[in-house]
Amino acid sequence: MAQAWTLVARPNGMPSIGDFALKEIAMPPLADGWARIRNRWLSVDPYMRGRMNDAKSYAQPYALGEPMAGGAVGEVVESRAPALKAGDLVLHSFGWRDEVVGPAPAFTRLPALDIPEQRFLGHLGMPGMTAYFGLLDIAAAKAGEVLFVSAAAGAVGSAVVQIAKIKGLTVIGSAGGAEKCTMVRELGGDHVIDYQAPGTLADKLAAAAPGGIDIYFDNVGGAHLDAALGAAKDNARFAMCGMIETYNDENPPAIRNMMRIVRARIRMQGFIIFDYNHRIGEFHAEMGRWMTEGRIKSEETIRKGLAATPAAFLDLFSGGNSGKMLVRL
Amino acid sequence: MAQAWTLVARPNGMPSIGDFALKEIAMPPLADGWARIRNRWLSVDPYMRGRMNDAKSYAQPYALGEPMAGGAVGEVVESRAPALKAGDLVLHSFGWRDEVVGPAPAFTRLPALDIPEQRFLGHLGMPGMTAYFGLLDIAAAKAGEVLFVSAAAGAVGSAVVQIAKIKGLTVIGSAGGAEKCTMVRELGGDHVIDYQAPGTLADKLAAAAPGGIDIYFDNVGGAHLDAALGAAKDNARFAMCGMIETYNDENPPAIRNMMRIVRARIRMQGFIIFDYNHRIGEFHAEMGRWMTEGRIKSEETIRKGLAATPAAFLDLFSGGNSGKMLVRL
Repeated sequence: MAQAWTLVARPNGMPSIGDFALKEIAMPPLADGWARIRNRWLSVDPYMRGRMNDAKSYAQPYALGEPMAGGAVGEVVESRAPALKAGDLVLHSFGWRDEVVGPAPAFTRLPALDIPEQRFLGHLGMPGMTAYFGLLDIAAAKAGEVLFVSAAAGAVGSAVVQIAKIKGLTVIGSAGGAEKCTMVRELGGDHVIDYQAPGTLADKLAAAAPGGIDIYFDNVGGAHLDAALGAAKDNARFAMCGMIETYNDENPPAIRNMMRIVRARIRMQGFIIFDYNHRIGEFHAEMGRWMTEGRIKSEETIRKGLAATPAAFLDLFSGGNSGKMLVRL
Repeated sequence: MAQAWTLVARPNGMPSIGDFALKEIAMPPLADGWARIRNRWLSVDPYMRGRMNDAKSYAQPYALGEPMAGGAVGEVVESRAPALKAGDLVLHSFGWRDEVVGPAPAFTRLPALDIPEQRFLGHLGMPGMTAYFGLLDIAAAKAGEVLFVSAAAGAVGSAVVQIAKIKGLTVIGSAGGAEKCTMVRELGGDHVIDYQAPGTLADKLAAAAPGGIDIYFDNVGGAHLDAALGAAKDNARFAMCGMIETYNDENPPAIRNMMRIVRARIRMQGFIIFDYNHRIGEFHAEMGRWMTEGRIKSEETIRKGLAATPAAFLDLFSGGNSGKMLVRL
């Protein structure tokens, strides 16, 4: 038997622990070409909130009563597939559970890089790849430009800050509270905005970027997006990656500066990182090199044990993480 | 002496007649290389509302006490410039006045096309050019795609509808009231939404485009933009041309569907038609041909006399025009 967190209710607004239940799942015997994986690291990510709704989205809604899918790193403990052998570390998307069996192609062996295995759920995984292609492809960032990134201490934002510095941009990062702001500065942020401190975001952004911003990397939506619209230079590019501030809000805040899209000829481009899967090689090559060279620091917030998973997920929405939020089994 | 409407107060919210005053303006004697123009047609356009604010924008704010600038067509009545002779018809941007003098390069002789002169303020002028490049360049419209356009009975929208039909798109146009909806249908719109009729825009758009929309041409912002976000197919393009619904609204409505920018990978691109001035030749060639061939119909709402100008402008914001709003002197 495996243990897995399942979705038992679809939340309106902020989810709660009661939306999830830990269940025993029967594990079928290994079929030919299958493997059994014992999970070591589970990922909790903001996008999962969207999949809890029964709504049109880029990913299928989670089914009620079924295990919560998501990124995980595990170890092969038994294999009837030639491509995998016991002891191999693999990445997969079977999510919030301690063990899983499945056909070998559902498991990707981790590349042989001298990098801690859980990075494949963080800066060398989906969040890092989101930062990399969002900044360099969607926003077409160039040396000398001024970048504003929200949730700059988060899994995606902390990668955006560091990649932008490597590429020669001026970086303004927003984060909540003194500790995260210090972290953003240590990652190389030129200016840090504490959105929890007194004063408006518009004023803080104007002080940090008196000449305006060329790029906004949006992880939060809402008031940050509005402030970025107000500060955008002509022909600014907005990489629209997520809007965590609004995921649990049934009455999203008004965006007062929408008309600046027209006046400043802003290009706002939404993107889903899965669309870049065919370019993962480029990302692994360049980001992997930066990471082995020590040019990318990876902050992590680690919770212990399968039981802690839903709470770790919920804490994403109150800023409970610095860097990547992970669960260690 | 010339008579000119000047801006005497900057409005908050909806402007009023009292924000303008008709003044006598001394006319200097003609300098060498200058010409005197008697205006025949004045343009009133939604973008002028933005220039009444003292705020950062693509065009300079109107100065208090100065004549209202804007598009106009007039006749040369006196010339000391070799390029212009009495009787020539010219386009210029000196705006809401009966007469003006200036250096010859400030006046553009109308091309010799068999088209009524006032069209150079409408479908063969700035609104038509906005429709043409907004649809074909910014939104990259292709045959077979589904287009939604708001203010489809307006100066820009009525051109968007017709260009899109020439290019083989399915067109859904929104307009206010039965009369305008009939007009949009007569221009070739496949589906017409009366936004003043009972029911939500989202429901009306879902009925008109059950499979979603590929392109939204936004002239109004607000609730139309929100409905378009909700109906957008993956990789939809939004040409963001103006947001007349919000120009006079100090508390713009919340956009509830912002997150669909991410989920549907929408590209929202703001644009200012002045940036396409270097491509005006392409536009004149193709649009001029369509117009002389009778493939583009041009509805006009014509007010009489200089005194009527501010009221004509104000009526733009309550839907008082079908097609291009003009003042005939």
